[in-house]
Amino acid sequence: MDIGDKVRVEMKDNVFEGVLMPSSGNIVVKLSSGYNVGLDKKEIKNVKVLEKHKEKISKSLKLETSKGKKNITILHTGGTIASKVDYETGAVIARYTPEEIVTQFPELNELANINSRLISNMFSEDMRFSNYNTLAKEIEKEIKNGTDGIVITHGTDTLHYTSAALSFILEGLNIPVILVGAQRSSDRGSSDAAMNLICAVEFILKTEFAEVGVCMHKVSSDDICWLLPGLKCRKLHSSRRDAFRPVNAKQYAEINYNTKIVQIIDNSFRPREKRELKLKLFKEVKVGILKSKPNMFVDELKIYSKYDGLILEGTGLGHMPIDQHAENKEIFNELKKLAKKIPVVMTTQTLFGRVNMNVYSNGKVLKDIGILGDQLDLSAETAYIKLAWLLSNHPEHARIMMHENLRGELNNRIMNDFI
Amino acid sequence: MDIGDKVRVEMKDNVFEGVLMPSSGNIVVKLSSGYNVGLDKKEIKNVKVLEKHKEKISKSLKLETSKGKKNITILHTGGTIASKVDYETGAVIARYTPEEIVTQFPELNELANINSRLISNMFSEDMRFSNYNTLAKEIEKEIKNGTDGIVITHGTDTLHYTSAALSFILEGLNIPVILVGAQRSSDRGSSDAAMNLICAVEFILKTEFAEVGVCMHKVSSDDICWLLPGLKCRKLHSSRRDAFRPVNAKQYAEINYNTKIVQIIDNSFRPREKRELKLKLFKEVKVGILKSKPNMFVDELKIYSKYDGLILEGTGLGHMPIDQHAENKEIFNELKKLAKKIPVVMTTQTLFGRVNMNVYSNGKVLKDIGILGDQLDLSAETAYIKLAWLLSNHPEHARIMMHENLRGELNNRIMNDFI
Repeated sequence: MDIGDKVRVEMKDNVFEGVLMPSSGNIVVKLSSGYNVGLDKKEIKNVKVLEKHKEKISKSLKLETSKGKKNITILHTGGTIASKVDYETGAVIARYTPEEIVTQFPELNELANINSRLISNMFSEDMRFSNYNTLAKEIEKEIKNGTDGIVITHGTDTLHYTSAALSFILEGLNIPVILVGAQRSSDRGSSDAAMNLICAVEFILKTEFAEVGVCMHKVSSDDICWLLPGLKCRKLHSSRRDAFRPVNAKQYAEINYNTKIVQIIDNSFRPREKRELKLKLFKEVKVGILKSKPNMFVDELKIYSKYDGLILEGTGLGHMPIDQHAENKEIFNELKKLAKKIPVVMTTQTLFGRVNMNVYSNGKVLKDIGILGDQLDLSAETAYIKLAWLLSNHPEHARIMMHENLRGELNNRIMNDFI
Repeated sequence: MDIGDKVRVEMKDNVFEGVLMPSSGNIVVKLSSGYNVGLDKKEIKNVKVLEKHKEKISKSLKLETSKGKKNITILHTGGTIASKVDYETGAVIARYTPEEIVTQFPELNELANINSRLISNMFSEDMRFSNYNTLAKEIEKEIKNGTDGIVITHGTDTLHYTSAALSFILEGLNIPVILVGAQRSSDRGSSDAAMNLICAVEFILKTEFAEVGVCMHKVSSDDICWLLPGLKCRKLHSSRRDAFRPVNAKQYAEINYNTKIVQIIDNSFRPREKRELKLKLFKEVKVGILKSKPNMFVDELKIYSKYDGLILEGTGLGHMPIDQHAENKEIFNELKKLAKKIPVVMTTQTLFGRVNMNVYSNGKVLKDIGILGDQLDLSAETAYIKLAWLLSNHPEHARIMMHENLRGELNNRIMNDFI
């Protein structure tokens, strides 16, 4: 039984017919409705192959490497961006070799010499810090081999956590590293995969950008992608193609898919120049994220005393329930203890806007007991990644460095609009 | 020493001069810079009154009650919306009586007969479920006394949690209950307090609305307020006046502050009709909110086995890290145990868009082990309030009722735009 075979799976109570998908763990079958079902191996009574997958892609395609063209590497971490159903056979074809990628997106071959590899094949929600380290080492290899730019295909769920993590790991990065995802899988007519990928390559070829960025649809139609700062963006919709938005920042650029014109909107990014890449990897540190809410209990906070750091998602300008009720006062006492023991960093659950712990006495009191984060405009996600990275690489100076602008993660400019 | 007195506070290392502010706990002094400082009583060495506060507001103003005008009640819960510095004396005057409110906002007296009371004086981040119950009982009293509509002034930090809580408590509500806040305190020229309050009253007088709504600036200029559904809105900026946004819904109406024209945008709200109000109060249930993230640890989840319910803020369409790594697999096993014991409800940290646990096997597997929330479009905040309210009032049916549209908290219409 191979990936792409049409199968009939008999379960205890149900029978599923569809195409066998790549997966780790459960058996995953793509039904004719387009949905994937994950089936527990233990509950499967019988599986029958109805039709063997016929590989229709010519493996004989020879990619010509041209000296005039730049070299672009595409690293695949999983997600559906580079897989596609062959509608003639109904089979799912995972296309990860350079030849397969170029067969799927022929435009790429005209733009650059494409090198492509599969690093992992996982849902992005399963990523841990060790996956960031693996990915960073592969990026380092590619840079040593002389690539001009890297595109990483990635599940969208935690794409912005990964872009933040790579921004910190890749100290001295001197080429562009662009993450792209797709909100519609490549086997659907409405897929956004091709456009995001091609716009990322256009952006790499036409600019001097040398940071970690994210290239996704700006609008839901297939017109414009935007290039977002990897440290200041976020998935803000569960299903729309234009789900990714900048947070407390502007888009660096817009890429018109039709005209291929790249328009720079904010040129504050780091350009390519001679720098030496040094990988600063994550260690297995434990950092929590805790969201403030009405009727909070102190035990929710207490477990983090065993952690190395904690991100608070406070309300408003950076507040927690610390007064008026006995339980709130216990929360305050626990925060006081915690902030002495580990770095505790305030962010805001409003998502947009900056933390300001000087306006109200609640914030002032939290600042006084050593809660960090005053004046920062980090999303909780970027703050989480930054704190974990600091605890991995600069444990002695994490508190001070949290407030330093290390990779462009802090924006001191005033934004005229927020979303 | 009275509120409003100009004082000089000597601390161990510092001396502060300013106006004594109302507070519970610390001594709060408004400095000439406009900032408030909270000073720990234990660390104060000496306090000197420099100048006694001179109350300048005439207490003799007699409000004439007119039979032609409707009766509006303003209930104050705290925050700065109804307090103002008297710039002549520098004193802070908290104006909560009907006379004082009308002195501050003279337009109100022309619009309606104003009744006004102080319910509490607290930062909204300190609110607990018991405060929601108190507020609901005061609303019930006012309705029994024949008020035509209620405006609640409220701190903005958790205003949307309160609007959701009141929506559930006030079963059979047959008058409008509108929450308003201010992002700039009333003692600043740029305060948005007056406009939000007056637009709320205009909306009450000109529509048949009989739900819990939120009235705040739609744009940062003083032109338009919008009336948002109390169950489907959220604070999305830490400091901007137009911080409140609808989430997976449209604004019900827009109120032009200059022309006083009320434009209905979405008329799906419940109109005034004969219904009997029944208070369904909160009990002291324990519900957690836990946000999914890369490199999560199972112990973050374990503490909720002592809770009555748990809201998950998953990634994307509603996913958690449950595969690929040993720790993720432990998270899966713990989720499985937890979902058997208590209601565990999936929401999404993308904030906008709906949970859909049928698309990817990760979601399907979570649904299979009994995680609730599939197809819901609730914010994590509203889901939290709804679950706590269900556990208070319908503990036996909480799992089923979580998926029922009880107060308009679920929106089955497709949104053309999200923010």
